[in-house]
Amino acid sequence: MSASMGCAIVGVGETRYVRGSGVSTLHLGTECALNAIRDAGLTPADVDGMILFTYMDPLRTYDLQMNLGIPELSWQLDVAGGGNNATGIITTAAAAIQAGLCSTVLCLHAINRFSSRPERGSGPNLTTPFGLLAAPQSFALWAQRHMYEYGTTQEQLGAVAIACRKHASQNPRALMRTPITMEDYLNSRLVTSPFRLLDCCLETDGGAACIVTSLERARDLKQPPVEIIAGVCNASGPATHEGRDSAEYTSMGSRYAAPRLWEKAGLGPQDMDFAQLYDCFTFTVISQIEDLGFCAKGEGGPFVENGRIELGGALPVNTSGGHLSEGYVRSMNLVNEAVRQLRHEYEGTPRQVPGARRGVVTSAPNPGSAIVLGRD
Amino acid sequence: MSASMGCAIVGVGETRYVRGSGVSTLHLGTECALNAIRDAGLTPADVDGMILFTYMDPLRTYDLQMNLGIPELSWQLDVAGGGNNATGIITTAAAAIQAGLCSTVLCLHAINRFSSRPERGSGPNLTTPFGLLAAPQSFALWAQRHMYEYGTTQEQLGAVAIACRKHASQNPRALMRTPITMEDYLNSRLVTSPFRLLDCCLETDGGAACIVTSLERARDLKQPPVEIIAGVCNASGPATHEGRDSAEYTSMGSRYAAPRLWEKAGLGPQDMDFAQLYDCFTFTVISQIEDLGFCAKGEGGPFVENGRIELGGALPVNTSGGHLSEGYVRSMNLVNEAVRQLRHEYEGTPRQVPGARRGVVTSAPNPGSAIVLGRD
Repeated sequence: MSASMGCAIVGVGETRYVRGSGVSTLHLGTECALNAIRDAGLTPADVDGMILFTYMDPLRTYDLQMNLGIPELSWQLDVAGGGNNATGIITTAAAAIQAGLCSTVLCLHAINRFSSRPERGSGPNLTTPFGLLAAPQSFALWAQRHMYEYGTTQEQLGAVAIACRKHASQNPRALMRTPITMEDYLNSRLVTSPFRLLDCCLETDGGAACIVTSLERARDLKQPPVEIIAGVCNASGPATHEGRDSAEYTSMGSRYAAPRLWEKAGLGPQDMDFAQLYDCFTFTVISQIEDLGFCAKGEGGPFVENGRIELGGALPVNTSGGHLSEGYVRSMNLVNEAVRQLRHEYEGTPRQVPGARRGVVTSAPNPGSAIVLGRD
Repeated sequence: MSASMGCAIVGVGETRYVRGSGVSTLHLGTECALNAIRDAGLTPADVDGMILFTYMDPLRTYDLQMNLGIPELSWQLDVAGGGNNATGIITTAAAAIQAGLCSTVLCLHAINRFSSRPERGSGPNLTTPFGLLAAPQSFALWAQRHMYEYGTTQEQLGAVAIACRKHASQNPRALMRTPITMEDYLNSRLVTSPFRLLDCCLETDGGAACIVTSLERARDLKQPPVEIIAGVCNASGPATHEGRDSAEYTSMGSRYAAPRLWEKAGLGPQDMDFAQLYDCFTFTVISQIEDLGFCAKGEGGPFVENGRIELGGALPVNTSGGHLSEGYVRSMNLVNEAVRQLRHEYEGTPRQVPGARRGVVTSAPNPGSAIVLGRD
């Protein structure tokens, strides 16, 4: 038996993923929260903990509490920051439940990212003067370095985009469902070398949420519990963020999260039936596959070739289409997909990873968060 | 023996509290962090967890990690929001340590509040159109209601201001150290009825930090460990925030935090040797004294009279001068004062609460956080 955080994900929910929601972030948050609560067979009054993270768009737990009609919360946190927080807040929610601070936690992210103005960044900005104005530019540096160091090819980046789109084609929730070929990929316009349009995730309006409770309580609820075997919340080293020491410029936060994750889980990459990996760009899938130990450092490029990361391959990755093709809800949608795979909700369709019992979900890039989920 | 979260505060530190720091928030954060780390007899490399909260001013854990030279963090969260989070982040840090996510956590708040522009609020703002433009105006409504319901007087509000200033007069770190009389108080200019200038906390530039680790590890460190007996992180009900249901308009988040706190602690108000209570305005001290059960609801006004909350009185409150006279560092400075009282650092001076063994620190107003601290 593997380790456990003594907690499980018992409900998942989301809004539609769209370009132009026409509603507020609070509306999106309320909608995905209600869907997750209903999915768990609970009511808002059963929720006594809440943690969310926001990026640009203001959204606060107390506004959600009011909107949902939750009478009392005994633990709540509004976390500031990007997609690295998703599996991190779930891990922290499990810790809060373990410590007796609350029993049933709503974990959430909602954002009108497509409709909002781009953020200006926060803190003393050391990179803007050098031309790193937007995420593709800084991530492109990592990808370039990886290509230089390890001979990673454009076609290997393309294999990630193609796999995600293929998966999305089976997912009614996905924003981009038309399959693409390598030719389509190579013909897509250059954004910032080596990234083409199809290397970049979608800017999406939407929200996704899940409900975490104790494993003991989970066993009495509606859905088959999906256990949180282990989690890491925002591990980081000195060399992982843009503008810092660039001695190691081919890995991201997952490099620091992975060893802690496997040690806590008492499991390794060989035990995973699938991986849902934060894919803000195709490159981050390749680097995380290495950092998580699915292959040696530098071998991520060849690893993703020949359908190995597609459904039916040795390691299905981003089986919903991920951020590249389902929608960019900062890893919270990857969590929901992992939960549904482990519940075997797609049984009888090609989307199901057959007999899936354990999977890993990451929330890179920096710092790095990740969880290992499993079913009995 | 009371309960325990299995953790202790082993180091405290701060910057100077000033009007006009002339340095960045990152500078303030780095300085108070280093002071707390040194106070614990540790080095930055011993820190593997970090949690901070920010209000307006951008400050991020990863920038602090870089500035402090911390090689790796295994758990970190940037929390968005106000002073309610201070004892909340300490409580959550203890839960993370309990869950094995990290071992030694830097908890921090730093802000150039005096020097920054006032914030505009976040989220859909339901109160601005009705004239609630700044905090004194909304808190004044609570105070007015309390006066109407319970006959609380202007002089009782003044007794809080006088007690805090008296305490600050013994504290070299305090911004406002000149003692005030009731006449001074009553003659101070009206800000928004019933609040006079001396009812309002100071706008301060500064930072304060503490180090939390396991009780086991704490026993090997430099300072006498101050145990985290119990904590609540951001409890809230439906009626506690401005703009919501106003059925209960004389209490704040501490109303929801208090019963949970005492239940977890296995202790009650009668066991506390002092209280450090979030005093953004004089009124919040009165309402929290009631909510924490030091007296019945409505009796907080008479409770604070006749020196009862002054050093030497039955319940010394805000023995550093609090937010009203030491500086407004959103309850993190109240935590540091509680730790020093429990270490008996002021032994031999009138500032020491004689033989202090247990105290409560709150981070109101909404939601409500609080911790009970103790020494063996």
